[in-house]
Amino acid sequence: MSKKLIAEFIGTYFLVFAGTGAVVIDTMTHSLTHVGVAATFGLVVMALIYTFGHVSGAHFNPAVTLAFFFLKRMKGKETVYFIVTQFCGACTSSLTLYMMFGNVGNLGATLPYGTWQQSAVLEFILTFVLMMVILASAVHEKALKSFAGIAIGATVGLEAMFGGPISGASMNPARSFSPALVSGHLEYIGIYLLSIFLGALTAAAVYRLLHE
Amino acid sequence: MSKKLIAEFIGTYFLVFAGTGAVVIDTMTHSLTHVGVAATFGLVVMALIYTFGHVSGAHFNPAVTLAFFFLKRMKGKETVYFIVTQFCGACTSSLTLYMMFGNVGNLGATLPYGTWQQSAVLEFILTFVLMMVILASAVHEKALKSFAGIAIGATVGLEAMFGGPISGASMNPARSFSPALVSGHLEYIGIYLLSIFLGALTAAAVYRLLHE
Amino acid sequence: MSKKLIAEFIGTYFLVFAGTGAVVIDTMTHSLTHVGVAATFGLVVMALIYTFGHVSGAHFNPAVTLAFFFLKRMKGKETVYFIVTQFCGACTSSLTLYMMFGNVGNLGATLPYGTWQQSAVLEFILTFVLMMVILASAVHEKALKSFAGIAIGATVGLEAMFGGPISGASMNPARSFSPALVSGHLEYIGIYLLSIFLGALTAAAVYRLLHE
Amino acid sequence: MSKKLIAEFIGTYFLVFAGTGAVVIDTMTHSLTHVGVAATFGLVVMALIYTFGHVSGAHFNPAVTLAFFFLKRMKGKETVYFIVTQFCGACTSSLTLYMMFGNVGNLGATLPYGTWQQSAVLEFILTFVLMMVILASAVHEKALKSFAGIAIGATVGLEAMFGGPISGASMNPARSFSPALVSGHLEYIGIYLLSIFLGALTAAAVYRLLHE
Repeated sequence: MSKKLIAEFIGTYFLVFAGTGAVVIDTMTHSLTHVGVAATFGLVVMALIYTFGHVSGAHFNPAVTLAFFFLKRMKGKETVYFIVTQFCGACTSSLTLYMMFGNVGNLGATLPYGTWQQSAVLEFILTFVLMMVILASAVHEKALKSFAGIAIGATVGLEAMFGGPISGASMNPARSFSPALVSGHLEYIGIYLLSIFLGALTAAAVYRLLHE
Repeated sequence: MSKKLIAEFIGTYFLVFAGTGAVVIDTMTHSLTHVGVAATFGLVVMALIYTFGHVSGAHFNPAVTLAFFFLKRMKGKETVYFIVTQFCGACTSSLTLYMMFGNVGNLGATLPYGTWQQSAVLEFILTFVLMMVILASAVHEKALKSFAGIAIGATVGLEAMFGGPISGASMNPARSFSPALVSGHLEYIGIYLLSIFLGALTAAAVYRLLHE
Repeated sequence: MSKKLIAEFIGTYFLVFAGTGAVVIDTMTHSLTHVGVAATFGLVVMALIYTFGHVSGAHFNPAVTLAFFFLKRMKGKETVYFIVTQFCGACTSSLTLYMMFGNVGNLGATLPYGTWQQSAVLEFILTFVLMMVILASAVHEKALKSFAGIAIGATVGLEAMFGGPISGASMNPARSFSPALVSGHLEYIGIYLLSIFLGALTAAAVYRLLHE
Repeated sequence: MSKKLIAEFIGTYFLVFAGTGAVVIDTMTHSLTHVGVAATFGLVVMALIYTFGHVSGAHFNPAVTLAFFFLKRMKGKETVYFIVTQFCGACTSSLTLYMMFGNVGNLGATLPYGTWQQSAVLEFILTFVLMMVILASAVHEKALKSFAGIAIGATVGLEAMFGGPISGASMNPARSFSPALVSGHLEYIGIYLLSIFLGALTAAAVYRLLHE
């Protein structure tokens, strides 16, 4: 169990460090462009799945962990430990970025480009699809499971690519909460958390209807 | 059968949502660039193949389904159900984008940059090659089938990259029809549908000549 | 044998159509950028290897075919047929681009950015490494052969990325000869052909020293 | 043993040639952009792992070799030979670039964008994560080892993408030392070497605590 939590801590720490760090460093240097930021998010998820998938399952995302609990693939106690660890890893990461670079680019916090309704709908769809990809490519018994890391990393990368300019393409409560907290931009965090958890749980419910 | 149709609906919905959504959001925010739009198309196809390939075959494309029918790999009734479902998924997607963002960027409709003859020839070649890649990498008995998702996603991505600026690089009747219908740009749709269906069927005929 | 030659024809045709087409279309529309052109070259090679690797070996490159002959992995007659077919496929491709778009961007011909000596050295190194990657990742008995398409496609993509601005990063006699012929820019073709064939044969000789 | 050293020499030579060559050529032609430079670094590492992984283990990095020695996976003599060969390969590469293009862009030497403390912390984190990815994806007994090349290449690519604008994202003593030496920019080299070796050894120590 402690190995799993260490993997989730390091994984979530680095997912947030690389992804929101890319936003911060692009704000400072204007060299990554949005394409580079989105590529960073997709690649870090893919790399971490092949690194920690066989240790902890490579969630790094409280919504994913909760959806697995909902599908009875995680026990209650384990779920709580995982989610607390993920939030700790993410917040440690935002603090590291804050200490290194200061409060630049809101530390990569996700804020709506247009109306909050637009971002709420978009986050719901993005997280629904991400969770569906996770379940169908990594859990489904006939899936080519060894390629799940590529499929899931690609999904995060492409959703960051096209959805990022509207909502920040969070899909992950820990990834949105930690920079919002540390940079002091908690005004939309409730909407993000709600949309993301709902998206993941809806995907889990649809998956259960279809396959179980 | 209903599982297959649900997979085709979700897959085609999200393929069009991500791909044409990328065009719409790039028109609004100028942040993806053409490179980001093309990458979105390639990545979404790859991710969806590893997600739904073992459920429905992961067509998401009426021209692909028709080519498999032509090669006697789909029954007539199934073919009709698949194609209707794909068009429904795509149109639902274009409606979602319209409701979220309005009629921006023609909702990603494919229109010729130069003459329509140029685009017709290009769509024929692009779809011919895509269908050939599908058949030779995912169907051919000696193929490394587990890598077919990478090969097909790469093909869609690279064809979107170099062909996109000329014809929009559709290669998919559902992907062209739905934004054209919802945005009211049906003027070139007949040419696109004809070129794409012809390209896919020609590839199937060549493949049959060679391998069956 | 005829299946192999058809695979080599279609493969070389489309490799040149996509790759040099990307240069042509970027010259016309300024939308791909150099990054998009290089990505197109890498992705098309990767996709075609998983498409035709199990049919013809997926050479699409006279220097690669000659190196395999040098290593006694191809017979003399087969080598001649392969190379002639590859040049025919490439020239048909450049003619298609010429008919579609006219003589734009020299049809993607490779010309030195600086001195011809710089480009000659660079093409030698690029082709040496490409041939070494091919032999060590796809032929070596302990190689993870199923990943060779990814390794070789990545090599072509990265060499196009960093070497393209200097020499055009040809690494392939057919890819350089056909646009040079059709666009009327044969002035440097001898240097390119020499460097490329020498690079591939040197790699084959080093490989033989090490492993046979 | 000589085969291993030749593989390490060619691999480190080309890793530095492509990666720092991308910096040099982007300085000359302004065509790659930072995104293209980072992609070059990631792709070259991935391609070389599938090329030489089964020959030498595909280190190309003195910090990686030292970490394997620390974990008792390399003998002392072999470790020295590997590290000397890697530095020789890298320096030969920087000399080649110097002879081809002159002292352009400091030959890709890594220099701090902001304070040296920022770069020191960043290099420590980047190398720690890279070494953790290497150990957990390529050495761990339950890992999907065939995908390690993708995971490690992705890690180098994404770290170059987001960390490059701050510290140059070296993660490799040979990659930093050789352009610094040949271009005459040794002023920060000690800080880089220290951070990188510490990062790799810390990851190895954490890995040993967890798994051995």
